[in-house]
Amino acid sequence: PNQYLAGLPTTIFTIMSQLAVKHGAINLGQGFPDTEGPQDIIQVAAEALQDGRNQYAPLTGLPELREAVASSNRRFYGLEVDPATEVVVTSGATEALAACLMAVVEPGDEVVVIEPLYDTYLPALRLLGAVPRCVRLQPPHWSLPEAELRAAFGPKTKAIMLNSPMNPSGKVFVREELELIAELVREHDAYAICDEVYEHLTFHVKHIPLMSLPGMRERSMRIGSAGKSFSLTGWKVGYVTAPAALASVVAKAHQVLVFATAPNLQRAVAYGLNKDESYYQALSSQMETQRDLLRDGLHRLGFETLPADGSYFIVADISRHAEGRSDVEFARWLVEHAGVATIPVSAFYDPEGDTPPQNLVRFAFCKKPEILREALKRLEKAL
Amino acid sequence: PNQYLAGLPTTIFTIMSQLAVKHGAINLGQGFPDTEGPQDIIQVAAEALQDGRNQYAPLTGLPELREAVASSNRRFYGLEVDPATEVVVTSGATEALAACLMAVVEPGDEVVVIEPLYDTYLPALRLLGAVPRCVRLQPPHWSLPEAELRAAFGPKTKAIMLNSPMNPSGKVFVREELELIAELVREHDAYAICDEVYEHLTFHVKHIPLMSLPGMRERSMRIGSAGKSFSLTGWKVGYVTAPAALASVVAKAHQVLVFATAPNLQRAVAYGLNKDESYYQALSSQMETQRDLLRDGLHRLGFETLPADGSYFIVADISRHAEGRSDVEFARWLVEHAGVATIPVSAFYDPEGDTPPQNLVRFAFCKKPEILREALKRLEKAL
Ligand SMILES: CSCCC(=O)C(=O)O
Ligand SMILES: CSCCC(=O)C(=O)O
Repeated sequence: PNQYLAGLPTTIFTIMSQLAVKHGAINLGQGFPDTEGPQDIIQVAAEALQDGRNQYAPLTGLPELREAVASSNRRFYGLEVDPATEVVVTSGATEALAACLMAVVEPGDEVVVIEPLYDTYLPALRLLGAVPRCVRLQPPHWSLPEAELRAAFGPKTKAIMLNSPMNPSGKVFVREELELIAELVREHDAYAICDEVYEHLTFHVKHIPLMSLPGMRERSMRIGSAGKSFSLTGWKVGYVTAPAALASVVAKAHQVLVFATAPNLQRAVAYGLNKDESYYQALSSQMETQRDLLRDGLHRLGFETLPADGSYFIVADISRHAEGRSDVEFARWLVEHAGVATIPVSAFYDPEGDTPPQNLVRFAFCKKPEILREALKRLEKAL
Repeated sequence: PNQYLAGLPTTIFTIMSQLAVKHGAINLGQGFPDTEGPQDIIQVAAEALQDGRNQYAPLTGLPELREAVASSNRRFYGLEVDPATEVVVTSGATEALAACLMAVVEPGDEVVVIEPLYDTYLPALRLLGAVPRCVRLQPPHWSLPEAELRAAFGPKTKAIMLNSPMNPSGKVFVREELELIAELVREHDAYAICDEVYEHLTFHVKHIPLMSLPGMRERSMRIGSAGKSFSLTGWKVGYVTAPAALASVVAKAHQVLVFATAPNLQRAVAYGLNKDESYYQALSSQMETQRDLLRDGLHRLGFETLPADGSYFIVADISRHAEGRSDVEFARWLVEHAGVATIPVSAFYDPEGDTPPQNLVRFAFCKKPEILREALKRLEKAL
């Protein structure tokens, strides 16, 4: 078999979810809500199965979903998007990431990525023969080090992969950071692959698409996800917004990787995207309440937490409690002895790079308040 | 953008389907049924949306679907398959093909493929840096040339991609051919990626999985598709059966490409796979009736047809009617002047290879008998 793939460890999400089941633990590891998405969206998906549209959807997605994605770009960010040529529907954001990378990189190209990062970024780009240039955010504020970022760009840079709001850190990149990134991307005539699946999950900070900055419209691929926007992570419906010249190449990658996505789910997501602002506000404010609940509870237990203004996640510094154990050891101890599953943050660093921080653990707060309270109780008891 | 991807032509299926719409043509081009799949399967999918399982499915698929795939392997082919370690559910067979290729090839490896071939095979393997070695079936009987096949294997051969029942030819490989292929695969210690999406659509010939031949169990990846087995091509639920050592690597490719597939569709497909033999017999006998109807009609119009013992497709020799036009020109003429969309078979040959035959056109017969009759009437009128 392919040596690189065969050597990849099983994803940490699967490992921790399996441990959670084995130990009857509360799963604050893998990021998925423990409530279902809106009933009306589910209803639309169910009804859409029944009216004779179960054959192949068009390669780039159903027209109604491409329209809804374009309209959502306009309403939220003032981005004008042509639904016919600038949107590609994918089987989730993971496929979107792979397709966008395929669309721009050639073997030997360098891609700038920011650690800690989602665990398919590095395998996806390495399998395409691209070379990652990693820049590390700095705890305790997840600050973006300008000098390192500048140094990561060079003549071979083909793209940056930017995840904002960011998993696992919960960081939402602010305008000055985005301006610096945009400047470097333009200067190096590179592309930006913008993973914005948590775009609607920010807490009193505004999500700014990198694509909306000057000169970035024509070089950005912006990825959204129904799973995250509608709490239906299993559906795996994603969408890429990109200038036509790039979108057509993303579509070709999609043609080779998957080809099309289930029409009934696409129709339900189109319906969902057209929900008015109050839906999105309610979603983020519920998530914020849960973040607050978990964060305050962690503080009471003596954990310091890092800023988390968006996403499903907050990272805690375990130094006070870990007694010399690494994040991996501590996470394993937590699932076994406290009955709470988390993700050690070192899993989000390049295994081929320098030793990552080993004092950070990620907690997911996309869970019911009573579950978060119970998790805090269990932690209190065990610590 | 990536030069190779950017240079790929828009898939012929999209082009011909768009032309079909534009000219109000009957679409015998893209292979999808014009009837819906079984209502009870659709009903299961709709109900499955409603009971709280809309978050991520496990990476390799829901246990009930992996069980159903294993059981189907046993019932139809006597293959013993461990559902826990030897099945990977994918977002359709296209993703399965990409994942299986990724699982075994490294840049520079050679992969044997048989022309005419499905249009993602070559891009998928070239994007991975693999090198295709094409062997052409010979009209008018779609015979497999032994000497050419032997010559295509060599020290760099990593795999063969075998599609049986085959698209676009309609050929079902017989035991002697499979034995020759198996001998060469074993001799070269290679893998077999077996695209068997039309496994249940054969007409009075038995489909034999290459995997069932001596020595092939441990080196084959067998791909099936709910789209084709249940006439629900839009659902994009596929499944790979492979020995555990390979399946685990396919799963890692799947993790990077897509990660998981919609749980409600998986549950409905699990239900479907458990249908008894009478369902599959009815499906293939209906398809056979339609093939006969189309084939006999084409004969009456003076077209010779090539053997088509399986799949959705039959290929006709257009020499008698084409008046010097190539298959591409003739197909375009047919959609414009006869109001019948087809696919020129030259689209299924390596664009970087020798000139393909230009006298063959593919007709899909996965359409209602009255539609096929109407298409034949239109052809008669135009010719
Ligand atoms: C695809 S499983 C991982 C879900 C997720 O985004 C996370 O937990 O980080
Ligand atoms: C994925 S679109 C093509 C459908 C098909 O298998 C064919 O027409 O050959």
